[in-house]
Amino acid sequence: MSVDGADELTGPREKITQTVGTVETKYVDLFAPPHELLMSVGAKLSPVRVAYETYGELSPAKDNAIFVCHALTGDAHVAGLHDVEGAKPGWWDDLVGPGKGLDTNRYFVICANILGGCKGTTGPSSIDPQTGQPFGLRFPFLTVADMVEAHAALVRHLGIDRLLAVIGGSLGGMQVLEWVAKYPRQVRGAVILASAAKLTAQGIAFNAVGRRAIVTDPNFHKGDFYSQENGPKMGLALARMVAHITYLSEASIEMKFGRRLQNSTQFAYELMKETEFQIESYLHHQGKRFVARFDANSYLYLTRAMDYFDMADKYGSLEQAFEKTEARFLITSYTTDWLFPTVQSHELVNALVAARRHVTFVELPSPYGHDSFLLEVDPLEQLLRPFLEQTRKAAP
Amino acid sequence: MSVDGADELTGPREKITQTVGTVETKYVDLFAPPHELLMSVGAKLSPVRVAYETYGELSPAKDNAIFVCHALTGDAHVAGLHDVEGAKPGWWDDLVGPGKGLDTNRYFVICANILGGCKGTTGPSSIDPQTGQPFGLRFPFLTVADMVEAHAALVRHLGIDRLLAVIGGSLGGMQVLEWVAKYPRQVRGAVILASAAKLTAQGIAFNAVGRRAIVTDPNFHKGDFYSQENGPKMGLALARMVAHITYLSEASIEMKFGRRLQNSTQFAYELMKETEFQIESYLHHQGKRFVARFDANSYLYLTRAMDYFDMADKYGSLEQAFEKTEARFLITSYTTDWLFPTVQSHELVNALVAARRHVTFVELPSPYGHDSFLLEVDPLEQLLRPFLEQTRKAAP
Repeated sequence: MSVDGADELTGPREKITQTVGTVETKYVDLFAPPHELLMSVGAKLSPVRVAYETYGELSPAKDNAIFVCHALTGDAHVAGLHDVEGAKPGWWDDLVGPGKGLDTNRYFVICANILGGCKGTTGPSSIDPQTGQPFGLRFPFLTVADMVEAHAALVRHLGIDRLLAVIGGSLGGMQVLEWVAKYPRQVRGAVILASAAKLTAQGIAFNAVGRRAIVTDPNFHKGDFYSQENGPKMGLALARMVAHITYLSEASIEMKFGRRLQNSTQFAYELMKETEFQIESYLHHQGKRFVARFDANSYLYLTRAMDYFDMADKYGSLEQAFEKTEARFLITSYTTDWLFPTVQSHELVNALVAARRHVTFVELPSPYGHDSFLLEVDPLEQLLRPFLEQTRKAAP
Repeated sequence: MSVDGADELTGPREKITQTVGTVETKYVDLFAPPHELLMSVGAKLSPVRVAYETYGELSPAKDNAIFVCHALTGDAHVAGLHDVEGAKPGWWDDLVGPGKGLDTNRYFVICANILGGCKGTTGPSSIDPQTGQPFGLRFPFLTVADMVEAHAALVRHLGIDRLLAVIGGSLGGMQVLEWVAKYPRQVRGAVILASAAKLTAQGIAFNAVGRRAIVTDPNFHKGDFYSQENGPKMGLALARMVAHITYLSEASIEMKFGRRLQNSTQFAYELMKETEFQIESYLHHQGKRFVARFDANSYLYLTRAMDYFDMADKYGSLEQAFEKTEARFLITSYTTDWLFPTVQSHELVNALVAARRHVTFVELPSPYGHDSFLLEVDPLEQLLRPFLEQTRKAAP
């Protein structure tokens, strides 16, 4: 690394509050016949619409593209504002923008909604061209590899051969892992946050509870609820409530809510009051908000894909999964994340070291549990800047 | 302590496998008018039936009685076998019996179903004498103090002025705490396992999810489901599934199930298969089993009582709560219990020390999470034997 680079990396950093400004989601139809998407479990899907956003400019050498893989319930809208009344900034607006961790003055940042999702990319709520009706549960079984397949095709469609980096947390990190294993030549840097080569059994257990809540909701109608007035809203809200607890830490819940009451200083002693404690009120609110923006069938497919994701099982061993990649790795875990505990990042690091790959690993202190990867932007930025610099400078 | 006592406590211990044999649940109606049970929140309840079992013999001096407080979904049947086909041993049969930790050759052990429960003691599924119909949600709001009130009355009914010890884990431990605060003269020894002076906000969050699952089940019918063919079975099963995860540790789930499949060595890749992973199959099984034995309204009342339990809030401070008791305390927590973490036992111990009470505290190593207090019987026995001996010998 050059001295200039070192100065740049260790010099004082100004807090930049600029955003990428107004952005819009774009759509592209890929996998037109006869180039159907051949899914892991054998089904063919065609066409596949992919919703995506880009920020910054692709360099003439096309060597500055960074792909952001979103987590379970995210979408393509990472940064900036949509041109609509009351628009909220993208979900990682603190990290992506001019002068920020993913600096859009320097990098061309891409994010796309995942296959099976419900934010513009083809998923179970999309119309099945063969029937003219929403797929529902007739949508083919989906794996993390299928999500990556769709996004890798988008990258090629954008004329990009190699990505400077692929970055993602949680299910997004699983996509990064699959990407370097499946398309080892396409990725130069892999950033994996709060993730793992496989979900823990406890994680599967929580997902099972969430799915159970959805499928036992009488408004589920075996997934064909789109023409009904009510879908499985109660079940989906419940699924979100239980999942939300796993995204927080005991410490962060204690800090933010403790045992404080919502609208009183005295116990109401009412059995059916669901908003007595602040934490209850918050969870119910989260459940309601989620139902307004997410599809219950997508939730089933995507959580199932998480459950099944298992790099070592698929590639023989973790080390073998990393055999072909020449990517540099940056991995972070978070002290209070109990859904993707640090020990799982250790597994990744050990396998990468065994496979003689370049890896930087940091367990970041944070009270925010699994959500830390979204919230702890500053320490991430400190790691990302030199990592991206060095990756760009490294032999391509 | 005498040398004899010391020898006895430190000498080799034979593993005793005897049980108390055949037992039966007894019932007594207490709080007959005009001595109604005045509940914490103001309602009166009369009569109150209490289901209980006893093991061993009450000494002529009546100084050997030990009361066992059961946890959320337990019952009065702690030890031995009911005289029915296929009967299973009581829920703490490993601890209670001749020569065991609670040695029925030496002690008179009592356990009763808690008020608001559904195992013989008056609760929401009991018939309201005023209407001839089950109480349902018309059952008065219930606190841990009300549970203790009913059991303290049972103890008096049995002719016992003072208990050698009151012992309980989890919600049972909360009852023990309330007992020593409310009836300081009635308790000589207090044994509190995997418990706390208040539930964490995370614990409230999980309870809120469980209750939400029940009340949004369309078969809940505002609690009046007893005459219906189906009660809120789906909701109650879901509540149990999520709660069950919190009773285990990540380590114990990993040990017992890991990511192993239920009936295969290969992924089925089926979205709707709810028994693919062993942990899923196990949870669904637990949900089903629970529904067959528990009342959904009891679940609502009892979890709400746990949420509201807050010793410091009720008595001004924890130290004040322990001001009047002269009981000796034995407190255990378990390394992998994340529902009632060790730090909560520390709070109890600190308050007891500040109140100049006699307290022994041990954090026991165990992989079994919150369930450890039920499963780790051997180390508990090692602590209980000397504790009970010393308590009995201490000035009454």
